[in-house]
Amino acid sequence: MENVKVAVIYYSATGTNYTMGQWAVEGAEAAGAEAKLVRVPELAPDEAVHANPVWKQHLEDTSHIPEATLADLEWADAFIFSMPTRFGNLPAQMKQFIDTTGGLWMNGQLINKVVSGMSSAQNPHGGQEATVKNLYTTMMHWGAIIASPGYTDPVTFASGGNPYGTSVTVDQEGNMQEDVEEAVKHQAKRTVTVASWVKKGMEQQ
Amino acid sequence: MENVKVAVIYYSATGTNYTMGQWAVEGAEAAGAEAKLVRVPELAPDEAVHANPVWKQHLEDTSHIPEATLADLEWADAFIFSMPTRFGNLPAQMKQFIDTTGGLWMNGQLINKVVSGMSSAQNPHGGQEATVKNLYTTMMHWGAIIASPGYTDPVTFASGGNPYGTSVTVDQEGNMQEDVEEAVKHQAKRTVTVASWVKKGMEQQ
Amino acid sequence: MENVKVAVIYYSATGTNYTMGQWAVEGAEAAGAEAKLVRVPELAPDEAVHANPVWKQHLEDTSHIPEATLADLEWADAFIFSMPTRFGNLPAQMKQFIDTTGGLWMNGQLINKVVSGMSSAQNPHGGQEATVKNLYTTMMHWGAIIASPGYTDPVTFASGGNPYGTSVTVDQEGNMQEDVEEAVKHQAKRTVTVASWVKKGMEQQ
Amino acid sequence: MENVKVAVIYYSATGTNYTMGQWAVEGAEAAGAEAKLVRVPELAPDEAVHANPVWKQHLEDTSHIPEATLADLEWADAFIFSMPTRFGNLPAQMKQFIDTTGGLWMNGQLINKVVSGMSSAQNPHGGQEATVKNLYTTMMHWGAIIASPGYTDPVTFASGGNPYGTSVTVDQEGNMQEDVEEAVKHQAKRTVTVASWVKKGMEQQ
Repeated sequence: MENVKVAVIYYSATGTNYTMGQWAVEGAEAAGAEAKLVRVPELAPDEAVHANPVWKQHLEDTSHIPEATLADLEWADAFIFSMPTRFGNLPAQMKQFIDTTGGLWMNGQLINKVVSGMSSAQNPHGGQEATVKNLYTTMMHWGAIIASPGYTDPVTFASGGNPYGTSVTVDQEGNMQEDVEEAVKHQAKRTVTVASWVKKGMEQQ
Repeated sequence: MENVKVAVIYYSATGTNYTMGQWAVEGAEAAGAEAKLVRVPELAPDEAVHANPVWKQHLEDTSHIPEATLADLEWADAFIFSMPTRFGNLPAQMKQFIDTTGGLWMNGQLINKVVSGMSSAQNPHGGQEATVKNLYTTMMHWGAIIASPGYTDPVTFASGGNPYGTSVTVDQEGNMQEDVEEAVKHQAKRTVTVASWVKKGMEQQ
Repeated sequence: MENVKVAVIYYSATGTNYTMGQWAVEGAEAAGAEAKLVRVPELAPDEAVHANPVWKQHLEDTSHIPEATLADLEWADAFIFSMPTRFGNLPAQMKQFIDTTGGLWMNGQLINKVVSGMSSAQNPHGGQEATVKNLYTTMMHWGAIIASPGYTDPVTFASGGNPYGTSVTVDQEGNMQEDVEEAVKHQAKRTVTVASWVKKGMEQQ
Repeated sequence: MENVKVAVIYYSATGTNYTMGQWAVEGAEAAGAEAKLVRVPELAPDEAVHANPVWKQHLEDTSHIPEATLADLEWADAFIFSMPTRFGNLPAQMKQFIDTTGGLWMNGQLINKVVSGMSSAQNPHGGQEATVKNLYTTMMHWGAIIASPGYTDPVTFASGGNPYGTSVTVDQEGNMQEDVEEAVKHQAKRTVTVASWVKKGMEQQ
């Protein structure tokens, strides 16, 4: 699978989805893919960010991570998205990035990309399912192929059993409440594996 | 119902949802409510807006419409949201406004607001259902009471029969493909009616 | 609220949603409503039921609970549905009951019923959100008014924080993994309260 | 793609989804697959069926179509589901069949099946989107790979532009309101194509 290219696209305010994104990169690379971690731009006004020291610090700490671009979407064979829920749906930051892809969509350049998604929330049932599923709704518009983790490996059960995409609950201090590292890596491997099949299939057409 | 206050909150790039919002205001006022039309701020970069003359013109033509604020959400007893789909989900512009309501949410100030939503798309099945339903997912986080139109009036059938919220299909020239004016006004009246019951009920508690 | 009538409609294979339904009845009655617990008919073939001693026993133990009828839907001002997930959606048993309501729907007899839903699953993120949200999709077709619990009371946070409806995770031995009794009772009270507002409002029209 | 096996699984009361299923079989075969059309068993009571002469006639006319079995799910590399909406969700008949797959699920035998779905409704926005998307929620539990049509071919635009799955609106006399035959065939071809990539990929692992 050395030829598969994966863009791990995340939004993170205080670090959880950044960590999940890093694990996804590790899992994708371990599966033989070339992986790139990119963040979507912050949209929140400075006063909101500065009112939360952890948010401000995380933004500074990750300033070296490249911002996601349309070129990343063209480049990649597979996408793994990671983001916290915002009221049971994608954060505006992620949606804003997605909403800039109209040109790629019109040219059919997002067709047959293989995707999966991940999420986090502060409550155990705070929109983890809804957020990932809403992402997939958009992916269907793109003509992407959805390879959610399902229950394709026992590690899914150990990490909360979310078949739509790995999710984690985070307490108010930012501590993950479940151990999802292996589930993230499994999901990344699965996404890469399906993408390798699709890529090879398209090349042989 | 003279006491019911309704905020009609819309995002519109080229005018469709602005028109629907105006109809909703008319319908709410005809039902005896006090209604206010507010737009969420544009997020798209200038170059995107300027590349589309209709978008640019609409933005200029509606510069007098007040921007939605958190105070509008506090003020209103009921919300009617109107927005085009963007890949089967809310436009980032609308989500960005929603994502600024964390403080109101934390204080419980969005509880028992009565809501309904409307949408548009360029294809007949281009996300009209999904967009309104995703809005409602967020409304459940707010503790709002959802009064979708259902099939509560024959006018719903005549306008496309979307029970989640009135929706319209728009061709590439921006022409609405169905006559939804009466359906919008019915939806507004229904939202106001349910809100009047809820408001009176809360006052008498 | 002594006039509000609530139908608590559940499907339960091994008892979890029966217990949740009983709590909902208690919560509704404590809020002053008249509540009725009804079960939807079993659809599974005998061999499936008999292969699982707990399922068989529960079916026998609850044979005295009346089966849900269309008359219950007409009678009630509010519905509380409770059911386990089956692959992220309603069990066929519940859907079959719902699918018999075409006549009531056509006559508009389900309009303005106030509803909320509850669910259970074997994994923490095994479809708890999706199942309740899919129920609400159907409720929108009915013209019902959706009063999901949201975060209208701190007890929601303590029980898993599902704003769509109270949900519980059940281990393979049938033990509930969270203490949701108070959350169920709060949800029932909220459903009754909103229904009392709606009922009074309709009477005064 | 001569090796790809497709099960076209439908529920139809009065014939629409039977016709769509036949088109899907034709499309799959034209793409080189081996395709099998199977119907899920009727659940409605005889009095309901007999009260509708068209329903009764269709049931008799299709008695020769084999009923869907678990063996069909094992046999097939890809599934195409077709069903009318029932209040924005799957008909109980389809859900009942799906709910019998617990054993296959537990053994992982539904993993990596490639799927897409189709739907119909009596209103243009009567749950066409919601029904197909709810099917996909279940498919994620199965570990299936979702290959919705998206906008992968211009024919999608001509047939209503539903990116989740081909859908059709049917009037009260049962006449399809859009010409979706080519869209169905395109969807079938796409499902087969993706399934051929997945199948070959798995064989080479």
